[in-house]
Amino acid sequence: MKRSIADLALFGGRRIFDSPRPIGQLAAPDLAEYLRLIEPAVRGRRTGGHGPVERQLENELADYHGVRHCISLASAALGIVLLIRVFAGSRKGHVIMPSFSYRGLPHFARWASQEPLFCEVDGDSHTLEPAAVAGALAPTVTSILAVANFNHSGDIAALEALASTSGTALFFDSVYAMGNTHGGRRMGGFGQAEVFSLHATKLLNGFEGGYVTTNDDSLAGSLRELRDGGGIDRDLPCAPLEARLNEMHAAMALLNLRRIDETIAANYARYEAYRRGLEDIPEISLVPYRSESGESSNYQMAVIEVAESSVLARDDLLGILRAEGMMISAYYSPPLHKAPGASGSATRSLPLTERLGQRYLQLPVGEKVSVGDISQVCGLIQFVLASAGSIASRLAR
Amino acid sequence: MKRSIADLALFGGRRIFDSPRPIGQLAAPDLAEYLRLIEPAVRGRRTGGHGPVERQLENELADYHGVRHCISLASAALGIVLLIRVFAGSRKGHVIMPSFSYRGLPHFARWASQEPLFCEVDGDSHTLEPAAVAGALAPTVTSILAVANFNHSGDIAALEALASTSGTALFFDSVYAMGNTHGGRRMGGFGQAEVFSLHATKLLNGFEGGYVTTNDDSLAGSLRELRDGGGIDRDLPCAPLEARLNEMHAAMALLNLRRIDETIAANYARYEAYRRGLEDIPEISLVPYRSESGESSNYQMAVIEVAESSVLARDDLLGILRAEGMMISAYYSPPLHKAPGASGSATRSLPLTERLGQRYLQLPVGEKVSVGDISQVCGLIQFVLASAGSIASRLAR
Repeated sequence: MKRSIADLALFGGRRIFDSPRPIGQLAAPDLAEYLRLIEPAVRGRRTGGHGPVERQLENELADYHGVRHCISLASAALGIVLLIRVFAGSRKGHVIMPSFSYRGLPHFARWASQEPLFCEVDGDSHTLEPAAVAGALAPTVTSILAVANFNHSGDIAALEALASTSGTALFFDSVYAMGNTHGGRRMGGFGQAEVFSLHATKLLNGFEGGYVTTNDDSLAGSLRELRDGGGIDRDLPCAPLEARLNEMHAAMALLNLRRIDETIAANYARYEAYRRGLEDIPEISLVPYRSESGESSNYQMAVIEVAESSVLARDDLLGILRAEGMMISAYYSPPLHKAPGASGSATRSLPLTERLGQRYLQLPVGEKVSVGDISQVCGLIQFVLASAGSIASRLAR
Repeated sequence: MKRSIADLALFGGRRIFDSPRPIGQLAAPDLAEYLRLIEPAVRGRRTGGHGPVERQLENELADYHGVRHCISLASAALGIVLLIRVFAGSRKGHVIMPSFSYRGLPHFARWASQEPLFCEVDGDSHTLEPAAVAGALAPTVTSILAVANFNHSGDIAALEALASTSGTALFFDSVYAMGNTHGGRRMGGFGQAEVFSLHATKLLNGFEGGYVTTNDDSLAGSLRELRDGGGIDRDLPCAPLEARLNEMHAAMALLNLRRIDETIAANYARYEAYRRGLEDIPEISLVPYRSESGESSNYQMAVIEVAESSVLARDDLLGILRAEGMMISAYYSPPLHKAPGASGSATRSLPLTERLGQRYLQLPVGEKVSVGDISQVCGLIQFVLASAGSIASRLAR
């Protein structure tokens, strides 16, 4: 408990957390169960992909998402790069994507020999605004990479209509929407394909890895061949790359998939703790999940908005909380069109995105964060904002 | 033991191996030791890269290869793609490479927005012929990708001289040369960089993964930033990509590195068994390793040449052995410039490469193949070639 601003770690006081509190999920199954599952693969050296656990994982994930195909991959990044390449074919053009999103997206476009074309987002869902996409569609656009956020997947019907009318491929980075529903349907079967992650920090931890879901048999076949490194590359839409998921990863993901409801329930408990702990702080709003009846959410992130009227800016609060032992970061900041290295079509002005990029902060979540930790975090934020005037003066010195 | 050609599995007889005998190394440490090493990472959720085991592995590999830097990666493929990209910068040009080599190489060039420029190999080492490289060097060439083969690394001094004179980057795919020496120096420090694999089938099994070795501090720094996915992409030579090696892989590779001499000794015993078992078969020559004094070899592959005078063609022998339960394949066949999908500069004629592509076969090796298995394989090959006439007539029907 801090009694004066001198107690803040930023000003030399004692940190509230001795071991860092992360923003990743880091779910893990029972260690003994995991070791039992990988033992046959390790003992029999069946570790290099196409093993029985990988196949089982693909089947259970296809069931979970209610889709015909799940193609597991060494990473979600490679899934996005492969899809951009497949949809571009031999064309060198542009990929429409939101600028208020994950910093890797423009890099993935460049790995696929395309340039990003950043579009404005909608003010509620913070996903691609259909009107902006309609304005950006052009013959040079080789695909639309929509992003389904943790709290909202956006206006998918409008994007699907635009894609269909213009004959443009549409796919989703659904890394943060794993387990969420949209119109009562679990994410996985929208657009031509969706990409999910198995990184340790995401809802479904496979240490590392990713997968693509799709109902398109032909796309699924191409992705499998590309993933497996070719050999028969006669009819492939682009150069293949070895990108299989091996048994060690598949086993971790499979066991975590089987306890995903438990993970989401724990996420919900943490989210509720933040909601209760922050509700009386006027400068802070916790970003809500969808509350329409029939919709489900993964509750995996706790993102707060710092009011523009706050005496302490978002980045000041970020610095103060980091010093206390929280491995946190701003949410989608800077926006991609303002990031170092952004170029070309990136230089247009996206006023809403730029404003959003200054407002949000991710708070600690995941299995290494307890409800008790969260009440400490909320108490600290309350103290910091109540002392905002004196903190701001001290920071100004 | 086969008594007549009707006993061959290809003609309906019983296979000599009930479980398949592979051509991969598939070395593995003590299972309990492996599980002990990964337990802290699994328990503490420190699994996503930059863990203590990954750092330890990079240090021990740098020592092993006698180089300043080892940069671990999610795969060797990504290492080759990254290096081609870094050396090309913003140029779109050609990468000189041998055509008698691994089928993935041209794909890696295309992933880096370059086209392969296939060159002829030397008749003894089967590596890039310096005179052919000299003839192919042009302002459009963005790098030379030399391949160090399992049995010979080629004329490295001549390639380094050509690279230096022309100001062209030179690097090595040394995946099959792990542990070999060249001029008494262990591979790892030649050219601007070398790429090695940690795939389960290679000498150093990390399930999957790879690494780059280099003595160039600046290149090492760039590769680490690119591997880590950027964030600070201001001065990077190309778009970054998440490609870290995680603790599960690093632990497997580290334990296997510590027993690599034992793995090579077992490879040598198998190689000697092939040498003795095949020496009296006139149509077959086992490809030798370097025997100059002071040179070391990894003995990881057993590659045979089928004489042009043989009544049974290489592909007939391949089919017969596969039917008996050997998961074997032709060695570098077809050559890359004749592979499906090859195009552009790929269409030139490379007579020696084309001849080599018809002659070689890989025999079963690695920890799942015993010396007893090898004497069965050699006995079978002897029987098959002694009955070549009647087998050929039966195949012709």
